[in-house]
Amino acid sequence: MTRISKAACIGGGVIGGGWIARFLLAGIDVDVFDPHPEAGRIVGEVIANAERAYAMLTGAPLPPRGRLSFTKTLAEAVADADWIQESVPERLDLKRRVLAEIDAAARPDALIGSSTSGLLPTDLQRDMKHPERLFVAHPYNPVYLLPLVEIVGGEKTSAATIQAAMQRLVPIGMKGVHIAKEIEAFVGDRLLEALWREALWLIHDDICTVETLDDVIRYSFGLRWAQMGLFQTYRIAGGEAGMRHFLAQFGPCLAWPWTKLTDVVDLDDALIEKIGRQSDEQAAGLSIRELERIRDENLVGTLQALKGGDGGKGWGAGKLLKEFEQSLWAEGGGATASFDPSKPLRLIETKVSPAWVDYNGHMTEHRYLQVFGDTSDALLRLIGVDLAYVEAGQSYYTVETHIRHLGEAKLGQAIHTTCRILSVDEKRLHLFHTLYDTATNEALATAEHMLLHVDSKAGRTVPAPAAVLDKTKAIANAHAALALPEGVGRHVGQKR
Amino acid sequence: MTRISKAACIGGGVIGGGWIARFLLAGIDVDVFDPHPEAGRIVGEVIANAERAYAMLTGAPLPPRGRLSFTKTLAEAVADADWIQESVPERLDLKRRVLAEIDAAARPDALIGSSTSGLLPTDLQRDMKHPERLFVAHPYNPVYLLPLVEIVGGEKTSAATIQAAMQRLVPIGMKGVHIAKEIEAFVGDRLLEALWREALWLIHDDICTVETLDDVIRYSFGLRWAQMGLFQTYRIAGGEAGMRHFLAQFGPCLAWPWTKLTDVVDLDDALIEKIGRQSDEQAAGLSIRELERIRDENLVGTLQALKGGDGGKGWGAGKLLKEFEQSLWAEGGGATASFDPSKPLRLIETKVSPAWVDYNGHMTEHRYLQVFGDTSDALLRLIGVDLAYVEAGQSYYTVETHIRHLGEAKLGQAIHTTCRILSVDEKRLHLFHTLYDTATNEALATAEHMLLHVDSKAGRTVPAPAAVLDKTKAIANAHAALALPEGVGRHVGQKR
Repeated sequence: MTRISKAACIGGGVIGGGWIARFLLAGIDVDVFDPHPEAGRIVGEVIANAERAYAMLTGAPLPPRGRLSFTKTLAEAVADADWIQESVPERLDLKRRVLAEIDAAARPDALIGSSTSGLLPTDLQRDMKHPERLFVAHPYNPVYLLPLVEIVGGEKTSAATIQAAMQRLVPIGMKGVHIAKEIEAFVGDRLLEALWREALWLIHDDICTVETLDDVIRYSFGLRWAQMGLFQTYRIAGGEAGMRHFLAQFGPCLAWPWTKLTDVVDLDDALIEKIGRQSDEQAAGLSIRELERIRDENLVGTLQALKGGDGGKGWGAGKLLKEFEQSLWAEGGGATASFDPSKPLRLIETKVSPAWVDYNGHMTEHRYLQVFGDTSDALLRLIGVDLAYVEAGQSYYTVETHIRHLGEAKLGQAIHTTCRILSVDEKRLHLFHTLYDTATNEALATAEHMLLHVDSKAGRTVPAPAAVLDKTKAIANAHAALALPEGVGRHVGQKR
Repeated sequence: MTRISKAACIGGGVIGGGWIARFLLAGIDVDVFDPHPEAGRIVGEVIANAERAYAMLTGAPLPPRGRLSFTKTLAEAVADADWIQESVPERLDLKRRVLAEIDAAARPDALIGSSTSGLLPTDLQRDMKHPERLFVAHPYNPVYLLPLVEIVGGEKTSAATIQAAMQRLVPIGMKGVHIAKEIEAFVGDRLLEALWREALWLIHDDICTVETLDDVIRYSFGLRWAQMGLFQTYRIAGGEAGMRHFLAQFGPCLAWPWTKLTDVVDLDDALIEKIGRQSDEQAAGLSIRELERIRDENLVGTLQALKGGDGGKGWGAGKLLKEFEQSLWAEGGGATASFDPSKPLRLIETKVSPAWVDYNGHMTEHRYLQVFGDTSDALLRLIGVDLAYVEAGQSYYTVETHIRHLGEAKLGQAIHTTCRILSVDEKRLHLFHTLYDTATNEALATAEHMLLHVDSKAGRTVPAPAAVLDKTKAIANAHAALALPEGVGRHVGQKR
């Protein structure tokens, strides 16, 4: 995979900050130039949100966070970057001026993306000396969670630039979608703008309130669009009669008075005030920070749900998350290879995800086993039993588990696990995990597991290969010097 | 809660079939009239999809399925119904004729909902003798999973009708949203129509393909809209500056050429063929049945994810699902109260959900514990430890668990669990659960649990009250006559 080695972000608002967080969490160093006096604070808040969200999003090993620097000049920021992202306010004259400065100071081979929501790349690149490397890279808020980037080239943009841009988004977990022809607002914002204009009329004409309108979306087609968008959804609605029949049925509606879009609403002070007031009522006292938290938790949960879609293969943004995690495991799996033999292996670091808690904010019973299962998986990768090994037909299966609950993990709490290998032979692997509150280092739960090495297709135990056994025994031998953990060999209900 | 006691569905296509499935799975008897020769088959397929989806959606006890009858005449179907749902094709003359027939044959106090996507209720009720009971109840496909129903009254619709309609949707897990003023296409279809018209232009003008357009939606704002809709999302985007400031910024866009909606595309044969061909490519060989299955799995997963939103309190459609489940538990919790003391209690019946499986379609480790945890919860409700009990401050907490894996549960497989009470005293409850493949009755896993009765706030064990102990001991005494299950008291790694 072709990776960005150094990014520069020009403009650090909500969108610029989102890009910065994406890059940093993917392990990429970022230089930021933004003369706004509050830029450091705003970017810091976006990064904090992103780190909170990523801790809940995935248990895969994120690379060490990139280094963040604010520079005094634009030239300093872009000098050695190979991806430069411009996210300054949406004015053509301003963007042209900033892009000219970038053009003058950047490496000739640097990719230059603009976050513009609607300006044409041909207009943006007009005055550049090297316009072939300029393209639109239009993301969606929150940039650190929503994967889409619309990639649009101008008349002078080279095909090689488009191709390189698409490739470099993959390792940061994003989905570059190439828009074939440039038009104002591209594809996403045109769709949004159409729906938005209709929505303004509905509020203006008192057909409904903003809360009713949002409810109409989120209890119905919003749930469909999160996974399939518009046309694939309608393909299903067409049923056995097929898409063409469905479309032919739809035709007459276009002549009906089902939209006021031939007219443009006047977004005057009265309408702004009406929407503002209704929006305040809808928020029911929730602050922007609280709404951001809820939005991110819901996005994390939805992405995780879609990861299980299509029978575990993943679907849409969930499939992308699955692929992102697989690349993280492939690259980060060896990170703990140099372990300290005097201690149990520290394998999982995570936070208690909103999807893991009950009404009281306590982690539910089976989520403890999920974290312990992830711990076993992390050990298995360490001894060479990774995805490729499993796909080749052999694996370790858990046949027996004993869990003790010693304390309570709560929503958002940082937790980590350790693994002690109790014993290993040709077919058996006996493990003891402990789950800790990271802040206090208090043990909250323990799990003892017996795993068997199996031939998955034949469905029977087989001896593990020497390469795996050697690695496992090396750890087990080091662990043999440690005292036996309290609780090993307990059965349920045994007196302490 | 006010319940529908008997429903009649006039028209049994995809939408009518969806209503029928909603009613039946909520335990309501349904009479259907549809002269179409294939109606029975189509409705049967929708019900099968709905049953598959519900088995994955919730572990809460669904009531016994309602009775489904196809009648020979419309009058027979509606005669004793208190909710009549009209879902015939979208032609005003046809709907008026059908509604007149319903009007003549229905009970005077019956509620009559029309599934129309866009016709005005005032037009629909024009010729009715009792027009005050007619309203639009516009659902979204698939009706058995998407909760929204737009409720719209005409000039002659009574306020009491609207209120009664909204109330009766609650026990079937739906969300009635009252639209204040009637307009063609109401709110949802106006928003859809606006976006649809813009989408047609984008395909017509070769800006992108249908797959690219769907990707733009589902990798970005589709994920936002599933949970918050439009305005609440923009409220967050406005950030600290607030909604009014955000709107003021948005104003100028309305004057920009960001939409072609002032013009209406001609959906001619060439455009229909283009979309049909691109849609075929996008589907990549997946049949409508396969796409339906994937859609429903993704909807189930998303609804479950939103159930965990806002720190476990539930958000949007997930909050609705949570409330629906709570009402099911409240009403169905006592269903197994008359148990057979000669056997372990059969408590959970479910299917292996797509969110529960790994890449190979096998149920993941921690999902076994989820089903066992649900089994413990079902037993607790049976002995009087329900939601109200827990909210009053006491509960049982699991402190120790031992799991044995004996076989493998696979995607979609029907499974059930039984519970044997091993022992009970003032503070301790010792349980042994078994998870079975329902088709073969093969034991796939067992779980032994120790639970303690606690005061949740004080965080310490307290004796359970006599009412709970009496119920528990009655079961435990009956179970004492059974042979001890194999595997009780095992520790991890013990020889068989």
